[in-house]
Amino acid sequence: MWRSLRPIGRSDATGGYRRYAWTAADAECRLWFQAQAEARGLDYEVDRNGNQWAWLGDPSRGDAVVTGSHLDSVPDGGAFDGPLGVVSSFAALDELRARKVSFARPLAITNFGDEEGARFGLACVGSRLTAGQLTREKAYELTDASGTTLPQAMETAGYDPSTIGPDPERLARIGAFVELHVEQGRALDLTGDPVGIASAIWPHGRWRFDFRGEANHAGTTRLADRRDPMLSYAETVLAARREAELAGAVATFGKIAVEPNGVNAIPSLVRGWLDSRAADQESLDTVVTGIEKAAREYADRHGVDLDVVRESFTPVVEFEDALRDELGRLLGGERPVPVLGTGAGHDAGILSGSIPTAMLFVRNPTGVSHSPAEFAAEDDCVAGVTALADVLEGLACR
Amino acid sequence: MWRSLRPIGRSDATGGYRRYAWTAADAECRLWFQAQAEARGLDYEVDRNGNQWAWLGDPSRGDAVVTGSHLDSVPDGGAFDGPLGVVSSFAALDELRARKVSFARPLAITNFGDEEGARFGLACVGSRLTAGQLTREKAYELTDASGTTLPQAMETAGYDPSTIGPDPERLARIGAFVELHVEQGRALDLTGDPVGIASAIWPHGRWRFDFRGEANHAGTTRLADRRDPMLSYAETVLAARREAELAGAVATFGKIAVEPNGVNAIPSLVRGWLDSRAADQESLDTVVTGIEKAAREYADRHGVDLDVVRESFTPVVEFEDALRDELGRLLGGERPVPVLGTGAGHDAGILSGSIPTAMLFVRNPTGVSHSPAEFAAEDDCVAGVTALADVLEGLACR
Repeated sequence: MWRSLRPIGRSDATGGYRRYAWTAADAECRLWFQAQAEARGLDYEVDRNGNQWAWLGDPSRGDAVVTGSHLDSVPDGGAFDGPLGVVSSFAALDELRARKVSFARPLAITNFGDEEGARFGLACVGSRLTAGQLTREKAYELTDASGTTLPQAMETAGYDPSTIGPDPERLARIGAFVELHVEQGRALDLTGDPVGIASAIWPHGRWRFDFRGEANHAGTTRLADRRDPMLSYAETVLAARREAELAGAVATFGKIAVEPNGVNAIPSLVRGWLDSRAADQESLDTVVTGIEKAAREYADRHGVDLDVVRESFTPVVEFEDALRDELGRLLGGERPVPVLGTGAGHDAGILSGSIPTAMLFVRNPTGVSHSPAEFAAEDDCVAGVTALADVLEGLACR
Repeated sequence: MWRSLRPIGRSDATGGYRRYAWTAADAECRLWFQAQAEARGLDYEVDRNGNQWAWLGDPSRGDAVVTGSHLDSVPDGGAFDGPLGVVSSFAALDELRARKVSFARPLAITNFGDEEGARFGLACVGSRLTAGQLTREKAYELTDASGTTLPQAMETAGYDPSTIGPDPERLARIGAFVELHVEQGRALDLTGDPVGIASAIWPHGRWRFDFRGEANHAGTTRLADRRDPMLSYAETVLAARREAELAGAVATFGKIAVEPNGVNAIPSLVRGWLDSRAADQESLDTVVTGIEKAAREYADRHGVDLDVVRESFTPVVEFEDALRDELGRLLGGERPVPVLGTGAGHDAGILSGSIPTAMLFVRNPTGVSHSPAEFAAEDDCVAGVTALADVLEGLACR
């Protein structure tokens, strides 16, 4: 399975993946998913929001057990973030069939669309739409860097965007959703466990800072006459680091757009995106308020206008206690499986507002994520599949 | 003339011009130049480096008087930087014909290619090649943001790149080059003069700072585990401002490229371009050395690798005393015409190493340059044309 998925959307230059929603690489991944479903005799369908489903058993019976993840990537992402969960889902089903278990509940494997938000700037679009956390109107306004809107992109990819929106009937048929994911830190590496269970997802959000100054000639404009937004941006980047350190949180400026972006031109606009997350809401508020206050002072000092727009926000997600405890029981051996929080958002976090959800993490010895350096050893991947099979057997079989 | 040139390469979104070398907009500007030349019965030719010439009289007679500028632009540049010099050249010739002068020396109007360097990152490519200040080999290595090389771009535009290189025979036939340009600061506005004469061009250069860290997940990577190149970049931007202030110079980071440039990814690479200029070489060295030293300290502190590459450099240009004094004499009325230095590079600065050159500046009341806000009043443009006609008559006619 890995071998057929691996080359899709991989950049020769960086070794990283560029599988953005509704692109050609995404379409190839989707064909791969469909082929895997059909090879196993599963009932394949695409829901109203472009998410893919592969069903074993009749979904209309309800109380289904669903597992899966996503196949899209961040720019130059790694091979495991997303795909490990989907591949492990199919492998766990193969394992359950080898165990000759009988299924008491319908089972489905999913690929949620546009989880990373690399193209349209909003993460988890597929699950957000389904869960009613993103309105159709807002989704229609999403636009990529080249000016293509989400519905245009879906149409180009051969999907009908007119049906997107909340899907409560589908959710009502699901009794539990379990997402397996490569760990995005080093906690399991430090405890020495191949697999862990998620406790909570930190609250997190994305804010866009637009610093607007005045374009001018870099050679002939006196420093005193400048309104250079790059200076306020630079000061704000450093303020973000300081505020995050103080609060034990994280804050990152990883994306920037500059106009006119010429070597000999003072910029008219520096647009920087802040990603910030913290263990609780109060800490996150403190960090972001502190950064914005500092940014306004810097902007004023340089005669620069500042707009701050919150582009997305996800409150703290505490996964359901009962399901989490059941996973711990199903996986418990000599020592309990570690339970860990995470700063990363997931479709499981979105769905947890509607249905019982849980997550499994597989050890990532580099701790690196969203980069070709992210990694999971083969033995740990196998341990992940076994753990997922154990969980699915415990939940769906008698 | 203005009316036909104005719409070419203008962005509806910004009102700024995007006339980059060897693009469709550039080709339209070139057709406009050719049409202006032919409408006046001038002999039109394109030299081996893609610069355009319109001749009145036989160039082989030598000791020619040449005037002109460039038609390309920075990203979202203004209407005057470059085009004012070319338009004024044709208008000055019309004025001289109206004066019924007789020409004792050959006269030419030029449009030098790729003056701004907006596409390939090196300014004054056309005049540098002609003057032998850019080798054919280096020119062949120039590459734009999409990976297209300069020779590929020239070929696409229908020019043969195989002939590019120094053109000493052409330069040997030129006795004087005079470039008229909109002022890129407010000196003439402050003295109250419509036209000025250039004394010198500050030494200036462009340096590329490549900060290389480690791409990682913005939500799950502890601050202590990060190697975030954006932090070193931000500190360096602020160091550049401090060093320039101390030296009475200018230093600007106006262009940046980030990889992978994702909202939730710590960058692997932040590439920033420094433009710096000072009144003399020693001050410029002090500024750039200071910035680079600070940048290395910041990079070390964050576990980031730093490469600094000087992409271009132009030493101080003192325009020839004799020609400058002659311009002053030809234009002198009740009060002497102001003589001013400038931080901006020009083709005239490149050519001054090979032939006698001089520059005229036309008042820009906003002082703004490389932006749609750059401006010259109609009366001042007319004063510029009259001054250029006076100079050309004095130099080329008896």
